[in-house]
Amino acid sequence: MTLDALFARMASGAMYDDLSPELIEARAAAVRASDDYNASYGRPPAEREALLHALVGSAGEGASFEPTFRCEFGRNIHLGDRFYGNFDCVMLDGAPITTGDDVLLGPKVGLYTADHALDPVERREGACRARTITLGDSVWVGGGVTILGGVTIGDGAVIAAGSIVTKDVPARTIVAGTPARILRRITDADRSGYRPTH
Amino acid sequence: MTLDALFARMASGAMYDDLSPELIEARAAAVRASDDYNASYGRPPAEREALLHALVGSAGEGASFEPTFRCEFGRNIHLGDRFYGNFDCVMLDGAPITTGDDVLLGPKVGLYTADHALDPVERREGACRARTITLGDSVWVGGGVTILGGVTIGDGAVIAAGSIVTKDVPARTIVAGTPARILRRITDADRSGYRPTH
Amino acid sequence: MTLDALFARMASGAMYDDLSPELIEARAAAVRASDDYNASYGRPPAEREALLHALVGSAGEGASFEPTFRCEFGRNIHLGDRFYGNFDCVMLDGAPITTGDDVLLGPKVGLYTADHALDPVERREGACRARTITLGDSVWVGGGVTILGGVTIGDGAVIAAGSIVTKDVPARTIVAGTPARILRRITDADRSGYRPTH
Repeated sequence: MTLDALFARMASGAMYDDLSPELIEARAAAVRASDDYNASYGRPPAEREALLHALVGSAGEGASFEPTFRCEFGRNIHLGDRFYGNFDCVMLDGAPITTGDDVLLGPKVGLYTADHALDPVERREGACRARTITLGDSVWVGGGVTILGGVTIGDGAVIAAGSIVTKDVPARTIVAGTPARILRRITDADRSGYRPTH
Repeated sequence: MTLDALFARMASGAMYDDLSPELIEARAAAVRASDDYNASYGRPPAEREALLHALVGSAGEGASFEPTFRCEFGRNIHLGDRFYGNFDCVMLDGAPITTGDDVLLGPKVGLYTADHALDPVERREGACRARTITLGDSVWVGGGVTILGGVTIGDGAVIAAGSIVTKDVPARTIVAGTPARILRRITDADRSGYRPTH
Repeated sequence: MTLDALFARMASGAMYDDLSPELIEARAAAVRASDDYNASYGRPPAEREALLHALVGSAGEGASFEPTFRCEFGRNIHLGDRFYGNFDCVMLDGAPITTGDDVLLGPKVGLYTADHALDPVERREGACRARTITLGDSVWVGGGVTILGGVTIGDGAVIAAGSIVTKDVPARTIVAGTPARILRRITDADRSGYRPTH
């Protein structure tokens, strides 16, 4: 099976073999490409963007990560315009990870699409299943948050620092905790009257 | 506005524009300075201290971080004597982060002074607010802990591993959980009779 | 005291002086050895294995870590065959950390055997105690999990992402939360009929 065919199968939610030689090779390539991207900090934006495009499936205008960004494959990651990932982000993209525009990730955020099998014998033999992660526009994910496979986060939602997100998050809500639960909706009363200066 | 004036305004708790060119440039300088500091591991102490002083606002005698330390600006960080930050510490110092003497941070600790605006439109336009974080003398912060802006931790307090600290912690108490709650006070019964050998 | 004698004393659960010059020197050596190991990514397997053996006490066939792996001493770490540690693993091995075969650690996992003293004066003077961590065969530790000293995890157990593990985990159970609690047992109903393709 080609790598593209394998990724298509993984994106469908089918069980796959984590120990396939193609996947092991693709992981090693992603580490090398993320090394190149991380080491490019401070270089001209066009150069950094080229290295990011060599790593991820697609990235909108102005998308960037602080060091040290790591991912499993890279090519199943699709980032919107002005995406910003703060320090030490990790994405396991066995299935697609897709973000809208203006998404902000705090430091130490982990997005993990893949689960190993629960049965220890199947797990030992490489059994895995991955589920997509989707973030809407203008989502803010606080520092130290973990987001699991199968989760969709609606536009404008806020994930409090340290949360473990195991279920969908409605648009314009604040969630917090382990597992994350809805604290409240974001309303017009949350406007501060801020005016940008840049 | 000069960077000093901007940081003074941010320290006051006023809303600021996260996307100001001065802040973006200051962040890039902090990454480069932390790269230099992290890469100096194993060099003579005086050399490491000089690189730490080039990164943070002030640092007491014997203050040090294991690799890989990252911070947003650096110059708003003030560390007491014998401060010790274990592996993979991240500090976002939009507002001042100040520690007493003999503070110990476990691995993977995050101190995040800054919050983005809750309103998605304001957030997209860079609206941020930062609040100071203050740790007293002899505070021990366990591995994987997150401490949020506005928090003051009293002398001798202990933060259990993995806690999310959202509120002040009284001196000589143990807190734990998400969000962190007081477990108990530390008393003379916690003395073990230990005698140092160094 | 030789380092071996000191480690034997620490493994017994006796209080020790974290600031002993021997321990400070051993920590610095471990950082250098982990730098070498991490930098070897993509080199021939035999070369990587040699660098891993130079870092840890023992490692079974095919044991490996993704970058960036960090540990306190290294030599008190004993890894089974086919051990796999994903990105950004940290192990503080003041006391032995021992795993069975086919153990999988997700990204950002921390195993911390050592506790500082609770009394602030004793803590300032270096008082520490470490307790062993033991993982059975085929244990799967999810991303972002913290495991504390004194914990034994039984064969085939699954630790949900983001859990803080403070107590023993029975074999073939799923635990989750802060602190981690048993969700349920793993049974034959968890078999999926998966067949490996590698």
